[in-house]
Amino acid sequence: MHWAHKDLLDVSDLSTGDVERIFEAADSFLEINRRPVKKVPTLKGRSVVLFFAEPSTRTKTSFDMAAKRLSADSFSLSKSMSSLTKGESLKDTVLTLQAMNPDAIVMRHGVSGAAQFIAERLNCSVINAGDGWHAHPTQALLDAVTLRRAWSGDFGGKTLLILGDIAHSRVARSNVNLLTRLGVNVRLCAPRTLLPPKVETWPVEVYSDLNKAVKDVDAVMCLRLQLERQQDGLLPSLREYSREYGLGKRHLLNAHGGAVVLHPGPINRGVEIASELADMGESLILDQVESGVATRMALLFLFLTRKDQGGERV
Amino acid sequence: MHWAHKDLLDVSDLSTGDVERIFEAADSFLEINRRPVKKVPTLKGRSVVLFFAEPSTRTKTSFDMAAKRLSADSFSLSKSMSSLTKGESLKDTVLTLQAMNPDAIVMRHGVSGAAQFIAERLNCSVINAGDGWHAHPTQALLDAVTLRRAWSGDFGGKTLLILGDIAHSRVARSNVNLLTRLGVNVRLCAPRTLLPPKVETWPVEVYSDLNKAVKDVDAVMCLRLQLERQQDGLLPSLREYSREYGLGKRHLLNAHGGAVVLHPGPINRGVEIASELADMGESLILDQVESGVATRMALLFLFLTRKDQGGERV
Amino acid sequence: MHWAHKDLLDVSDLSTGDVERIFEAADSFLEINRRPVKKVPTLKGRSVVLFFAEPSTRTKTSFDMAAKRLSADSFSLSKSMSSLTKGESLKDTVLTLQAMNPDAIVMRHGVSGAAQFIAERLNCSVINAGDGWHAHPTQALLDAVTLRRAWSGDFGGKTLLILGDIAHSRVARSNVNLLTRLGVNVRLCAPRTLLPPKVETWPVEVYSDLNKAVKDVDAVMCLRLQLERQQDGLLPSLREYSREYGLGKRHLLNAHGGAVVLHPGPINRGVEIASELADMGESLILDQVESGVATRMALLFLFLTRKDQGGERV
Repeated sequence: MHWAHKDLLDVSDLSTGDVERIFEAADSFLEINRRPVKKVPTLKGRSVVLFFAEPSTRTKTSFDMAAKRLSADSFSLSKSMSSLTKGESLKDTVLTLQAMNPDAIVMRHGVSGAAQFIAERLNCSVINAGDGWHAHPTQALLDAVTLRRAWSGDFGGKTLLILGDIAHSRVARSNVNLLTRLGVNVRLCAPRTLLPPKVETWPVEVYSDLNKAVKDVDAVMCLRLQLERQQDGLLPSLREYSREYGLGKRHLLNAHGGAVVLHPGPINRGVEIASELADMGESLILDQVESGVATRMALLFLFLTRKDQGGERV
Repeated sequence: MHWAHKDLLDVSDLSTGDVERIFEAADSFLEINRRPVKKVPTLKGRSVVLFFAEPSTRTKTSFDMAAKRLSADSFSLSKSMSSLTKGESLKDTVLTLQAMNPDAIVMRHGVSGAAQFIAERLNCSVINAGDGWHAHPTQALLDAVTLRRAWSGDFGGKTLLILGDIAHSRVARSNVNLLTRLGVNVRLCAPRTLLPPKVETWPVEVYSDLNKAVKDVDAVMCLRLQLERQQDGLLPSLREYSREYGLGKRHLLNAHGGAVVLHPGPINRGVEIASELADMGESLILDQVESGVATRMALLFLFLTRKDQGGERV
Repeated sequence: MHWAHKDLLDVSDLSTGDVERIFEAADSFLEINRRPVKKVPTLKGRSVVLFFAEPSTRTKTSFDMAAKRLSADSFSLSKSMSSLTKGESLKDTVLTLQAMNPDAIVMRHGVSGAAQFIAERLNCSVINAGDGWHAHPTQALLDAVTLRRAWSGDFGGKTLLILGDIAHSRVARSNVNLLTRLGVNVRLCAPRTLLPPKVETWPVEVYSDLNKAVKDVDAVMCLRLQLERQQDGLLPSLREYSREYGLGKRHLLNAHGGAVVLHPGPINRGVEIASELADMGESLILDQVESGVATRMALLFLFLTRKDQGGERV
């Protein structure tokens, strides 16, 4: 059965069956990535543009590896590159890129909705690698791939706590969306100023006390604290924040046995997570990175072998 | 018949037969670029260095795609990279690059004549991707490839207007050179301060009034206004410029039916071209981008399969 | 016989037999690099990360070419890239990189010992591409490959003078280490302020007078003067330095006939070496660059085909 979607804007685009196919493909690529020869010829002769208007080494490198291990060619463009500094609009930049006949544009942008704006105007695949505070679907998918392996495929009845700056986190939004649909009970914990507006409409439980929030959870996902938010006056002092909301070993004592810890990285050791905890067996932080390449391989594979792929230009 | 040239410094290096071969190869590659699998093995194992001492995302990405779609490896260097900031001279930089045994160096540089200076000192191919105000042969060739397709192969008796900052434009110089030889009547239109010295020796008609200049033309090529020129006092105000020399829909009413519009990009919407015009069917701006990859594939193919290629080091 | 080493931290890691294998492999790759088709399939499907926390166009490009000519995929990361500016620690950055399952991380870093610190924590190969003032093993190896070809394979009884800022030079340290073991008599010449502490324990002769130092030598290796050292007050004026320690044609009159000149580049013409000398037949500066790609191919080949390669993750 051919893949039906042109674009990946958020996880809400995907049916449960779609997600299951991504999981299975990601698992296969994970095994391939551990072999000495990691390359498969699947996407030979395809072109993937990595267009990152916000910097991100790890996500861009992850997509770059994913593309090359599928034998696709990848092309990196970043905001600092010239035509952008020459004042060209986002729309004109991507129309120009599309005219070079790539098969997909992987795009990160600081404005929520940018990926959708672009996807509607292009006929090649657009993969959202993060748009403002809105969505980060490939992060949510790789987190789910990671948890699924840790939980032997069974999401049902598991409880996950997402901890930290929920308000400004596209990672939190996409994870809540995906994981609740997979049957996970999701809790949020943050100081009031870092909770999003209308959080009461989200399908989650909200806590302000970390000690209560971690009780009987199966996983804690720490979010990166954007240190620059302090200047906005939204944050308490770092010391105060890490004392109240920094995850430590002691918190896991109240969690379920075998509870795991995730973080999208890069981590601020000693701020949102205790340094020792990041390095312990419970930490899946590096598993997330490994799953990331495999999940992005799965996505590029599925989106670039869809039925209408290679069709007419608009 | 083997290709005779080591370097592409300007279009004047090329005979009419050479240009015809480039057209035919570019047309083939254009078709290939629209297929899902765009890669051909032609230049497998060859190395192409993209050395851009002036920034240019679109031209560099275009060459990068061209090289990779021919299965060559490409290597990007930009001015901001270290050995250049360490004060190494241009000559030493390119001698160093050549010692790594690339097959071609694609080079952009802010100084007119830089490409020739380098080509005389290297025994690998040098492809000029723009040198100062002097020449931009691959842009002129891709423009010709684009016009040839729009005009069903027939340049004879067609009239093209080049509009804007001619004085500082290598695009204009190379296009006048190439298109007049192909039988196109070329007109220039610009405020007096943006006309080059000795323009009366060029094989063109010169206009200062856009309304007269567009009469009965088959194509208008807008040039990018280098906004930084205003500081030199060479430019009228932007508002004044765009009122007098910005191309709008109304101007095309006096042109021939089916007249097309070109622009090398990136465009300043509302300055040198009306925004609505850039998006209309008459606009070949994105066709130029698509032709660009195909034309550069044609050039890399021809220059890197020339008879003496792979010869002894100097 | 399989290669025994996981990492290349300095030349002292290598036995004489190891060095001989590198020489032979480098010679083979040198011949391959002069052919039109330079690519061999040896490392197809392998991933090499180029992680340069200090900028270096030439070394990075050299490794990039080496990787691609072996059909490996390469991934460039530099310090200016985002996760680093986000304050992630070096250790977390490389653990993240390793989680993407590369086969080797080529690493340059400003801190002496950084490569070893990293290598101890990773189970993929770490190739030191320069760490602080400590070591630059691939430079020493490519210098030895270059000299070996110039000297028809015979290092015994030859005398090499290393000239310039020895104190801050990892190139000097690694070259002294390697070349003395190969049987070369090594001399150092520098103003007192640019000699390292405890130089009397090095297996070299030390000179302060260039005219005496060059007498009867077979090769002179000039070091790049880090012009920024002048601000530390460690340097005399440039004019004074180049008058006393800049290598000129006249100095070679006292050297052995056929004496050759090396420099790791980029050169400051007229400072550490006379411009005319850099361009003469005695200069092996561009040969070093060519040997560099071949030597790095040899190293990637040997380290990535070692017996335990592709083994379990730690």
